[in-house]
Amino acid sequence: MNRAVALLSGGLDSATAAAIVRSEGSEVFPLAVAYGQRHAVELEAARNVAKALLLPELRIVQIDLRAIGGSALTAPIEVPKGRSAAAIASDVLGAAVPITYVPARNTIFLSVALSYAETLGAFDLVIGANALDYSGYPDCRSEYLESFERMAQLATRAGLEGRGRYRVRAPLIAMTKAEIIRRAMELGVPLELTQSCYDPAPDGAACGACDACVLRRKGFEEAGVLDPTRYQTGVAVSPRHSQNR
Amino acid sequence: MNRAVALLSGGLDSATAAAIVRSEGSEVFPLAVAYGQRHAVELEAARNVAKALLLPELRIVQIDLRAIGGSALTAPIEVPKGRSAAAIASDVLGAAVPITYVPARNTIFLSVALSYAETLGAFDLVIGANALDYSGYPDCRSEYLESFERMAQLATRAGLEGRGRYRVRAPLIAMTKAEIIRRAMELGVPLELTQSCYDPAPDGAACGACDACVLRRKGFEEAGVLDPTRYQTGVAVSPRHSQNR
Repeated sequence: MNRAVALLSGGLDSATAAAIVRSEGSEVFPLAVAYGQRHAVELEAARNVAKALLLPELRIVQIDLRAIGGSALTAPIEVPKGRSAAAIASDVLGAAVPITYVPARNTIFLSVALSYAETLGAFDLVIGANALDYSGYPDCRSEYLESFERMAQLATRAGLEGRGRYRVRAPLIAMTKAEIIRRAMELGVPLELTQSCYDPAPDGAACGACDACVLRRKGFEEAGVLDPTRYQTGVAVSPRHSQNR
Repeated sequence: MNRAVALLSGGLDSATAAAIVRSEGSEVFPLAVAYGQRHAVELEAARNVAKALLLPELRIVQIDLRAIGGSALTAPIEVPKGRSAAAIASDVLGAAVPITYVPARNTIFLSVALSYAETLGAFDLVIGANALDYSGYPDCRSEYLESFERMAQLATRAGLEGRGRYRVRAPLIAMTKAEIIRRAMELGVPLELTQSCYDPAPDGAACGACDACVLRRKGFEEAGVLDPTRYQTGVAVSPRHSQNR
């Protein structure tokens, strides 16, 4: 059976990507990279998602990127709140990179996944990267992912010995958030267990206002699906994101 | 002034690579990746080397690769001892990958260096990779390093915005260990502070018998330089490695 290592962040996208690859017949080994992000909530979500999807036990690699900083997700910089989906999208169109960009994050994540894959004899690396709804992130583009594949082939013992061909599988790359949500529901992804928020409360409730929350809420609305996310009470943004478009 | 991030392992090669790049006019920022290796001795050596070379403070990123394993350096597997330089070399010629190979290690290291470089506005990543004396490691080949460069360009905000061109600088790639030692001495690298051993005693004394020690000792002998390394007493291998050639 084909083996794949799937990066799980605890979010909706990575869970759906893992579920898609599994539905196509691969044995999926979940991996989380704990990179000193503020919220352990994400790891707990990743663990719950892995369990709900009946995957093997989540492997967790700790890496403390706070020693490097450079992002609102790893350094004491404010996470932007209350931006409309349109404002986030204009970041994409203008090729501005959001402040939540963690320098070379996907490269670090995929490198750790590559290391784990080599110990398993796996050649597929699964990532929830998405180029449509939410980018401006250089490391969510197909061009980048293909370049990582070529590098991986040269980087490893398994590649050197010609035992297989590495692939970075990013099944969500061209999907809208609404399409991702619909596909996730078809595949039985436990959406209520996923955690997308950049700045959740200590109890895990989502802020509802960061870019990730805004896009997630808009996705549920467009998919015509009830959003099962537990939001903090008194969130200052409108619950109807259609007004912000 | 051109900025470079130099990966320091505490060993002779990485210290010399950093010194060479600095001698060519770059401002060098040292970085160590602590990957759950058995010996904190290496980190201490890296810190001492950075100080002796008057570099900025050593940045240390912790990453626990023991969660992955797969190598004698990260899992409870015996480090081979007492192999001759010839036996190590035959691994290279036969393209066998040593048990001390850590899956995708240089890719993880370079990825972390890339992340740090991006926060500094640096485009040069310095690594002590060497393809001659000591390989069989797929990720010590020029072909691999060039592929990483291309990937880095696509992976980052700085690359996307065209602010510079990433280079992986591996000035030792084609040098023999003896050449590296001679160059290190010319540049005032504190060889006595470096630590190459895969299995040092708790006090930092080198075992003298692992592959790294064997190659280091042979290098000093061939360079005609007194080896300042502190070895453990009662080491079972011959101190005259010329007999093993």
